[in-house]
Amino acid sequence: MSDLLWQKAGTRTDERVMRFLAGDDVRLDREFFLYDIAASEAHLEGLAHIGIVSEDERHELMVELENLAWDFRNGQFVLDEKYEDGHSAIEAHLTERLGDTGRRLHTGRSRNDQVLVATRLWLKAKLAVLHALCIDVAKIALDRAAASPLPLPGYTHLQRAVVSSTSMWFAGFAEAFIDNTQRARDTLAWIDANPLGTAAGYGVNLPLDREHTSEVLGFARLQVSPVYAQLSRGKFELAALDALGSALLDLRRLAWDLSLFTTAEYGFVALPAEYTTGSSIMPNKRNPDVVELMRATYASVAAARTEIEQLLSLPSGYQRDLQFSKGALVHGFARGLAALELLPDLLARMQWNETAMRAAIEPSMYSTDVAIEQAAEGVPFREAYRRAAAAADEAGQGRTPEASLAARVSPGAAADLRLAELNARLASLAA
Amino acid sequence: MSDLLWQKAGTRTDERVMRFLAGDDVRLDREFFLYDIAASEAHLEGLAHIGIVSEDERHELMVELENLAWDFRNGQFVLDEKYEDGHSAIEAHLTERLGDTGRRLHTGRSRNDQVLVATRLWLKAKLAVLHALCIDVAKIALDRAAASPLPLPGYTHLQRAVVSSTSMWFAGFAEAFIDNTQRARDTLAWIDANPLGTAAGYGVNLPLDREHTSEVLGFARLQVSPVYAQLSRGKFELAALDALGSALLDLRRLAWDLSLFTTAEYGFVALPAEYTTGSSIMPNKRNPDVVELMRATYASVAAARTEIEQLLSLPSGYQRDLQFSKGALVHGFARGLAALELLPDLLARMQWNETAMRAAIEPSMYSTDVAIEQAAEGVPFREAYRRAAAAADEAGQGRTPEASLAARVSPGAAADLRLAELNARLASLAA
Amino acid sequence: MSDLLWQKAGTRTDERVMRFLAGDDVRLDREFFLYDIAASEAHLEGLAHIGIVSEDERHELMVELENLAWDFRNGQFVLDEKYEDGHSAIEAHLTERLGDTGRRLHTGRSRNDQVLVATRLWLKAKLAVLHALCIDVAKIALDRAAASPLPLPGYTHLQRAVVSSTSMWFAGFAEAFIDNTQRARDTLAWIDANPLGTAAGYGVNLPLDREHTSEVLGFARLQVSPVYAQLSRGKFELAALDALGSALLDLRRLAWDLSLFTTAEYGFVALPAEYTTGSSIMPNKRNPDVVELMRATYASVAAARTEIEQLLSLPSGYQRDLQFSKGALVHGFARGLAALELLPDLLARMQWNETAMRAAIEPSMYSTDVAIEQAAEGVPFREAYRRAAAAADEAGQGRTPEASLAARVSPGAAADLRLAELNARLASLAA
Amino acid sequence: MSDLLWQKAGTRTDERVMRFLAGDDVRLDREFFLYDIAASEAHLEGLAHIGIVSEDERHELMVELENLAWDFRNGQFVLDEKYEDGHSAIEAHLTERLGDTGRRLHTGRSRNDQVLVATRLWLKAKLAVLHALCIDVAKIALDRAAASPLPLPGYTHLQRAVVSSTSMWFAGFAEAFIDNTQRARDTLAWIDANPLGTAAGYGVNLPLDREHTSEVLGFARLQVSPVYAQLSRGKFELAALDALGSALLDLRRLAWDLSLFTTAEYGFVALPAEYTTGSSIMPNKRNPDVVELMRATYASVAAARTEIEQLLSLPSGYQRDLQFSKGALVHGFARGLAALELLPDLLARMQWNETAMRAAIEPSMYSTDVAIEQAAEGVPFREAYRRAAAAADEAGQGRTPEASLAARVSPGAAADLRLAELNARLASLAA
Repeated sequence: MSDLLWQKAGTRTDERVMRFLAGDDVRLDREFFLYDIAASEAHLEGLAHIGIVSEDERHELMVELENLAWDFRNGQFVLDEKYEDGHSAIEAHLTERLGDTGRRLHTGRSRNDQVLVATRLWLKAKLAVLHALCIDVAKIALDRAAASPLPLPGYTHLQRAVVSSTSMWFAGFAEAFIDNTQRARDTLAWIDANPLGTAAGYGVNLPLDREHTSEVLGFARLQVSPVYAQLSRGKFELAALDALGSALLDLRRLAWDLSLFTTAEYGFVALPAEYTTGSSIMPNKRNPDVVELMRATYASVAAARTEIEQLLSLPSGYQRDLQFSKGALVHGFARGLAALELLPDLLARMQWNETAMRAAIEPSMYSTDVAIEQAAEGVPFREAYRRAAAAADEAGQGRTPEASLAARVSPGAAADLRLAELNARLASLAA
Repeated sequence: MSDLLWQKAGTRTDERVMRFLAGDDVRLDREFFLYDIAASEAHLEGLAHIGIVSEDERHELMVELENLAWDFRNGQFVLDEKYEDGHSAIEAHLTERLGDTGRRLHTGRSRNDQVLVATRLWLKAKLAVLHALCIDVAKIALDRAAASPLPLPGYTHLQRAVVSSTSMWFAGFAEAFIDNTQRARDTLAWIDANPLGTAAGYGVNLPLDREHTSEVLGFARLQVSPVYAQLSRGKFELAALDALGSALLDLRRLAWDLSLFTTAEYGFVALPAEYTTGSSIMPNKRNPDVVELMRATYASVAAARTEIEQLLSLPSGYQRDLQFSKGALVHGFARGLAALELLPDLLARMQWNETAMRAAIEPSMYSTDVAIEQAAEGVPFREAYRRAAAAADEAGQGRTPEASLAARVSPGAAADLRLAELNARLASLAA
Repeated sequence: MSDLLWQKAGTRTDERVMRFLAGDDVRLDREFFLYDIAASEAHLEGLAHIGIVSEDERHELMVELENLAWDFRNGQFVLDEKYEDGHSAIEAHLTERLGDTGRRLHTGRSRNDQVLVATRLWLKAKLAVLHALCIDVAKIALDRAAASPLPLPGYTHLQRAVVSSTSMWFAGFAEAFIDNTQRARDTLAWIDANPLGTAAGYGVNLPLDREHTSEVLGFARLQVSPVYAQLSRGKFELAALDALGSALLDLRRLAWDLSLFTTAEYGFVALPAEYTTGSSIMPNKRNPDVVELMRATYASVAAARTEIEQLLSLPSGYQRDLQFSKGALVHGFARGLAALELLPDLLARMQWNETAMRAAIEPSMYSTDVAIEQAAEGVPFREAYRRAAAAADEAGQGRTPEASLAARVSPGAAADLRLAELNARLASLAA
Repeated sequence: MSDLLWQKAGTRTDERVMRFLAGDDVRLDREFFLYDIAASEAHLEGLAHIGIVSEDERHELMVELENLAWDFRNGQFVLDEKYEDGHSAIEAHLTERLGDTGRRLHTGRSRNDQVLVATRLWLKAKLAVLHALCIDVAKIALDRAAASPLPLPGYTHLQRAVVSSTSMWFAGFAEAFIDNTQRARDTLAWIDANPLGTAAGYGVNLPLDREHTSEVLGFARLQVSPVYAQLSRGKFELAALDALGSALLDLRRLAWDLSLFTTAEYGFVALPAEYTTGSSIMPNKRNPDVVELMRATYASVAAARTEIEQLLSLPSGYQRDLQFSKGALVHGFARGLAALELLPDLLARMQWNETAMRAAIEPSMYSTDVAIEQAAEGVPFREAYRRAAAAADEAGQGRTPEASLAARVSPGAAADLRLAELNARLASLAA
């Protein structure tokens, strides 16, 4: 390993201890490395503004930071166990290339605000991806809701309840992902505050140009208090996972629907062949594995949440416990976004089996229609309900799914889906 | 128990099963009962608009609903195990008083949208309380941050690091609760959609006047899709708990600080005597129990989250599993708000012990100041760091906490707290 | 409220603070009150052994403790907010009746070991109930597995896979609950250690007769270390919840099966009518609510776990945070045992629909049989698999479910269920 | 990627989908690969017993399985994304080397029982490591408890309570790890059942010699039911994590103690220098990072638990969701065992600072001794308590920590530690 930034001459380290401390930290830092470099560049410019580095030094350091980013992207610089972490790697690289000039960059900052700002930029990028994916899902669901509806049994308690439609099903998930879009946007705005320049949680005796670094890095505002910058570690990660989890919660229910709809018993939906796999022992199987893993993904996000919230029972100020928040965050977002990325295509290409759906609509599913019709004609509802219950099996006489849906005029129901309203709301959130 | 709304003549129920199904549900419904009545009144007006109930019926039903609310508030109507749930209690009451007229109210609605709208109104009220409490906490923290600062050791890893101040500590938690204020507000806005009129998740064959019920009940918008209304059960509860948890997460860290600061070893803070208790065996003890239970409260919110998210692994449409979300929600909010309610007074009245805090500031805590001064004078920082490390014990020569704080000019630090900025942001969120 | 044990003259308490501290603690103590009295009696005898109370005092105190237990059981003594907690209530009662003699009982103990021993006894009782319920479930499942089997489709990925049988299904859950029986028994043995006599975590300057109290209270061994007695609070609660959760995890999967099997689409199972309910709006519905709440119950146990483990991030020694473990524990066990209590009857009375199950067995479900037969005849399995896959639709020619099951001779499969082995293991655990 | 075992001619796969399905599964399989090979060898022998493979084939396959294990251990065979998973890799390797003979091995088994048996063997190995580590920790703690004790303040609520000792502290954690040893052992015994031979959850039409494979693989018993074998996936993983978590829960509290004891404010403990690190900005810092990461480790185990329990809300039978249990399990055990591995050395080498500990013992900490002495002399305890409270500051007159500890004669307390009893219990569990 390269020299440790903080190591005092004459003290020794223990290999086993160092390995425990390092864990997979340096490899995780690959996720954050380019953001760390970008923030280092902003910090460098800030130092130049206040005269800590000269213009020449600024130029030299900037060139080397750019080179490092380039080499990293191209695989010529490998961030691995040679380094204690990504932050040390940057300083080691600059010092190797530029000697004393390299040793100036860390003036006025700590690894504490360095990791905060790199993580913040990463979180913003991930939430932007989440936002875009939620829009994609909502759009496709709205498009399919707008197509000619097919009758679909509506269930409560998994029991056949009333006639529903494919359009109602799509519109439901569309509105869900419109809400998820808003949640991603709100969360992004909530965390959009610059922690760079707060050092180890108590600021420094230098007039750092934090407004400039905020502007360069694209932050909406300053995270003012250095004490709060430290308190926000983990807290903001949890908020981002909450926004992700909101979408995954809906995906879990959608995947459950598809898992049932693709059984032989329901048979309502056929998935594209690529979304299914076979068995190693049973020659007859085609399994909807993708849908199952989509369903399972919420668990990974919940796990990331657990890991972070469990370790956050701490006094204020930085504690090393927080290191474990990094792996949890990366794992949760990797799983969550991977599942959402496949969803638009899956929704676009899943096919309804009209015959099976029609066959599943039983006469008694019209009883609610019957009871409400009678109520509208003046029978007290509870009385109408009892009559309809007694005659449930004849409820379907002279009725069709189409007629039932056409009469479902309450706002949001089959005859009044209000897709224009939903589209407009989505458009306003997409901006 | 009163007659079951859905019971068919001739079927029997089993006492043990009914008790399992009921659980503590009816008692929990006390929390939601007034909201259920308010929503019932809105539904009634909507039915009148579309001619399902006559003007006379509307009047009679409204009077009885008002009477029921009055009796409930005054303890003359007790919601208990006589009823299957709060919803049934309303219908039973109206039918008992008004006969067939009472049997009309349920026309076009289901207990599914009834529980959704009552819970939604409750959630909005609780989030409004959370919002107000976060503002109170932030205000007091800002006020105390504005008072003359005392030196306070700044810690990382619980090790003495650099000189900090009581103002920095208060400003840190102030900014935390400003963010929590925003989160409460955003969450309230996010869930501010009316589910009433979506029935059992598939709408009804009546042109319900959902715009009117939205307006009467003070919702910002319609929750359009009946399918989504069902999907939002649990999801919105989790979002509200997330907003609450965000504040509790900061409270946990604040309580940890106070738990340490009130030990004999630190001795930095004295709590008002009412906030401490004694021991049953040890005559000498004064224990900061309030602070400990504040710290523990996050666990209760996390538990509520777990309970709801664990049961939400379900296909779309209502399932009875969701019933258990109610108790979790009530428990989490009761605990969380109770802890936050005590915080403003505690923050206002906790007293700093200046002598102890000054005694805890060691000479080596000025080393960072020294290293950065040297860096500002041209020594490469890493070199300045090594020199300061070698001479850490002499770092305090000729230095005072006051001078260290006065030189801490980075934005947000002791010499540039930017409280005006924080106050302005809080004011903008309080509106 | 009655006088606080620890209150010093002249200090005041704050109503709001006291309410926050008390929470629902005193009401929760009703669960533990009789165990607290039993442990108080054991402690009293111990004190008599070492001469702290005289024989007369022992007698007087014992009579009053017995009276208190009697009055509590009969509702004549009500444990409510008058008291700080159950422990204080006992002392207050004894002091009121016996004056100074009553003031002697707390000699050498603390509320810390008092709550530990009462909770420990409660946990043992609950684990014994869990153990008995798991045995009941396993027995009924074994009985039904021994009845003539009906063919049942075997699923993987919810896709029809191979022919299975109702006996295999019952035997699977039987073995699950045999394991759960063992887990309950092991856990009971693991926590079967007496914490009484450890005082506030550091012992006392009295030769308490802990062996005697262990024997009287029926503990298998002493929890030796007072420091560990404190560390075990929460830890043992979690272990008990783990044992409960193990059974609930299986119940969740069993309930999922029944939830699907009772749909119109599957139609494999009919539940006794008492286990279903109706809808408030849809006259045609019969919903398997009991099964759904059984499925949801794991969430309540998981929530209890979360609440306790989240608050256990503490230094050693008692902290007030631990108070919140009580409500979580009671809630988790109440929900969990209530669900398990209904299971034996449900399993005994659920009815299979043979017609529906036979109809769901498709020809291709014999392909695995075909492939393995060919492999047994010398075709390399992977080749046999490919051939069978190509001819999956004809796999059923000349085959019946009965013949397929009769040929399933691998140990544990339909033709070799080994119920005797399972019964023997259950018997060995029931002792 | 190599050919998919189940792929039908003419169907295509989608790169993005395959990546999503694969995830990091193949890399995770490296953990299980040698166990998979060992189980494959046992299965092979079983097939030979029942005549599915000839003696020659058995020999050829055994040699190639041994070669594969050898090459894997030496890095000559790399398990990576070329393969769908470890199971496919074994079959692909054998088929490549041995043609049709290689295609025979999978006869009568499924990847479902293959992953079950490999995971089971892995879990047994990890629990054996956990068991050994708990013994190591308990032994060292018992050794240090047996050394001459130093006075240590005993805390409740982090407030100074009574005099304690370093021996009591060590003895407390010793008993904790004795319990953890028992838990590891019980859990290992609980899961020690062979799932190999249950195929895809429904057995096969071959008389597999499951007794033989159990014996060869060292299982204590058969997991009889194929249906239960599937139900145990995830359930057994959770039980193993519970046993691990039990130890980590104690480690979290121990690490909290050390985190406080190593602060400047307490100053009770000095850690070996290798267990601390420095700061990138503050030259004066030595931080107890190892202790902080030990404290944080429980969070990783809790996260693994969450991930698995969240995805287990499923009907019986295999579902692909279960794949995600693998990464969670590996992550949780890797973190947990790494933290425990460092603990024996840390406990052996941590040094107490007697001066600081003596200085922290205040006169009022003798009040409990005083009150109990008076109670022993006949003053009712509650009265003795009040007197001692009034005179708390003089409680120390004429008293020393040594005398207080010498008088602490209640079983388990300082004067009667009962280390022999604890050592005997540990010895009985170590066997």
